Amino acid sequence: MQSVKYYQEIISNHFKQLTLLKDPTNLYEPIQYIISLGGKRLRPVLTLMAAEVFDVDSKKALSAATAVEVFHNFSLIHDDIMDDAPLRRGNETVHEKWNINTGILSGDAMLILAYQYFEDYEPKIFQELAKLFSKTALEVCEGQQYDVDFEQRDDVTIPEYLKMIEYKTAVLVGAAMKMGAIVAQTSEENKNLIYDFGLNLGLAFQLQDDYLDAFGNPETFGKQVGGDIIENKKTYLYLKAMEFSNSVEKEQLMHLFSIQPNDNTDKINSVKQIFNATGSSEATQKAIHDYTFKAFETLDKMDISNDKKLLLRTFGEKLMNRDV
Amino acid sequence: MQSVKYYQEIISNHFKQLTLLKDPTNLYEPIQYIISLGGKRLRPVLTLMAAEVFDVDSKKALSAATAVEVFHNFSLIHDDIMDDAPLRRGNETVHEKWNINTGILSGDAMLILAYQYFEDYEPKIFQELAKLFSKTALEVCEGQQYDVDFEQRDDVTIPEYLKMIEYKTAVLVGAAMKMGAIVAQTSEENKNLIYDFGLNLGLAFQLQDDYLDAFGNPETFGKQVGGDIIENKKTYLYLKAMEFSNSVEKEQLMHLFSIQPNDNTDKINSVKQIFNATGSSEATQKAIHDYTFKAFETLDKMDISNDKKLLLRTFGEKLMNRDV
Repeated sequence: MQSVKYYQEIISNHFKQLTLLKDPTNLYEPIQYIISLGGKRLRPVLTLMAAEVFDVDSKKALSAATAVEVFHNFSLIHDDIMDDAPLRRGNETVHEKWNINTGILSGDAMLILAYQYFEDYEPKIFQELAKLFSKTALEVCEGQQYDVDFEQRDDVTIPEYLKMIEYKTAVLVGAAMKMGAIVAQTSEENKNLIYDFGLNLGLAFQLQDDYLDAFGNPETFGKQVGGDIIENKKTYLYLKAMEFSNSVEKEQLMHLFSIQPNDNTDKINSVKQIFNATGSSEATQKAIHDYTFKAFETLDKMDISNDKKLLLRTFGEKLMNRDV
Repeated sequence: MQSVKYYQEIISNHFKQLTLLKDPTNLYEPIQYIISLGGKRLRPVLTLMAAEVFDVDSKKALSAATAVEVFHNFSLIHDDIMDDAPLRRGNETVHEKWNINTGILSGDAMLILAYQYFEDYEPKIFQELAKLFSKTALEVCEGQQYDVDFEQRDDVTIPEYLKMIEYKTAVLVGAAMKMGAIVAQTSEENKNLIYDFGLNLGLAFQLQDDYLDAFGNPETFGKQVGGDIIENKKTYLYLKAMEFSNSVEKEQLMHLFSIQPNDNTDKINSVKQIFNATGSSEATQKAIHDYTFKAFETLDKMDISNDKKLLLRTFGEKLMNRDV
């Protein structure tokens, strides 16, 4: 069993030498560009780790891992168009550097390319991977649609929000791990357990993202702290604050989430104060802890050796103690 | 062996009762909408026919046929965004009726849905279908990119143009037929021959489209006659006219393809006159004939009964004698 770093190294090297450039250049250059921007490469690392957890050389899972990361980057290109985002990983987004049409078409090609990576596997495994992938990819689209829909609604419930982040983010983390298990041809039970592990870790991860966006350390947090507050995004923190607030706080919060001042300093501070005063911050941290714990619980049920459980647990803890 | 009409009936009924609506509605409503707009349903009909040509009940190919048509409609949604087209089949395009973001996301979901229809087949056939589908879908994206690229260039050659329409249109016709052959589990040779039949018919079909756009009967042609000329589209007719024209005609044609008058009547007539005078119209009709003939030639090599060859030939002739 290897360390997390070992798998990160494999993935990092793999994507460094991955050549996606061919004719027509205007289609493939943006694909090479977004892939070369890097990122944490969490999902493909999880695919490799899952394969090895079930006693198969991680290299056998490299094609599935590549599919997952290429799909993830496809969704980033299309989401960035929909969100009108200028920056991705500190660089221009594809539709900014080229144009919207290029973003649409290069994204489409990436979604297809993702499927092609599964062709390296024999028919039975290919079908199992592609089925899981299609189901997951469709859920990611549905999650994105819910996210868009929620912007227009002010009656979003906590269960609805959790379903949205489950679809938009967590299912792909679960699927990434299950793909490693499929390649390893382990039992159905193990496949489902590792999916649940990834799903719950993914939920914890996304809630952590919400939390850090407001309370992260500005010196280490990659993005602008308070970004969600500036954009009036109804995250878990906001929804919990609305749930817990008295009528004065509620009115204050709704007012703050309706304005767009030039200088956001006061707005951010006031909102954070309400998040703290209402107990929303605490509730969010508890939810993060609960989902992480739920992920770790599935590990106990898994039919694998203790050092493998430790590897997955270490990875989970590393992810949850991050401040970036 | 049944008539072409029989297969059209099956497909028409199938799509009438196909229910794609579910939550989130904002994602699936546009999908149901574009599918319900109808169209000729050429591709899925070809998939059914191909299955029966190789002695398998056409109903077995219905899922593959559905995948092809859903993919085709995905490409229409995204192409219409890129072309800024207001109308599709006489109705509002998806991005006009909703918005661009909806068009992007619903299109993405359709591409994934297309893959899911292959899940009805056993692993070996599933993989063969999905592989052909991915290859074809990627070529369609590449064809669309070439089409976009060509708008900015004035040195497009005839072979380049033919490659563009091959990728953008013809490969999907070939693949639609090959999918029927794959479902029927016929020989590799038959699979490749029916692909070539479809590919050449697809090329003839697209050139026919170019031709009818200028010379179709305004009373029966569905779209505005002269649309390509109004938009200065460098079709086969234009490229051949440039090749065959003397210096006076060339200058005239280049001038006509640089202006955008309010009333296009004179422009259309002048361009058509040059298409005729240079021999471009004739050359285009010859190319249509040649590709159709090439398609029919592959039929001779195919290991199927004569009545089946006749069915495919009848379909090809029907397609080529259309005036819509």
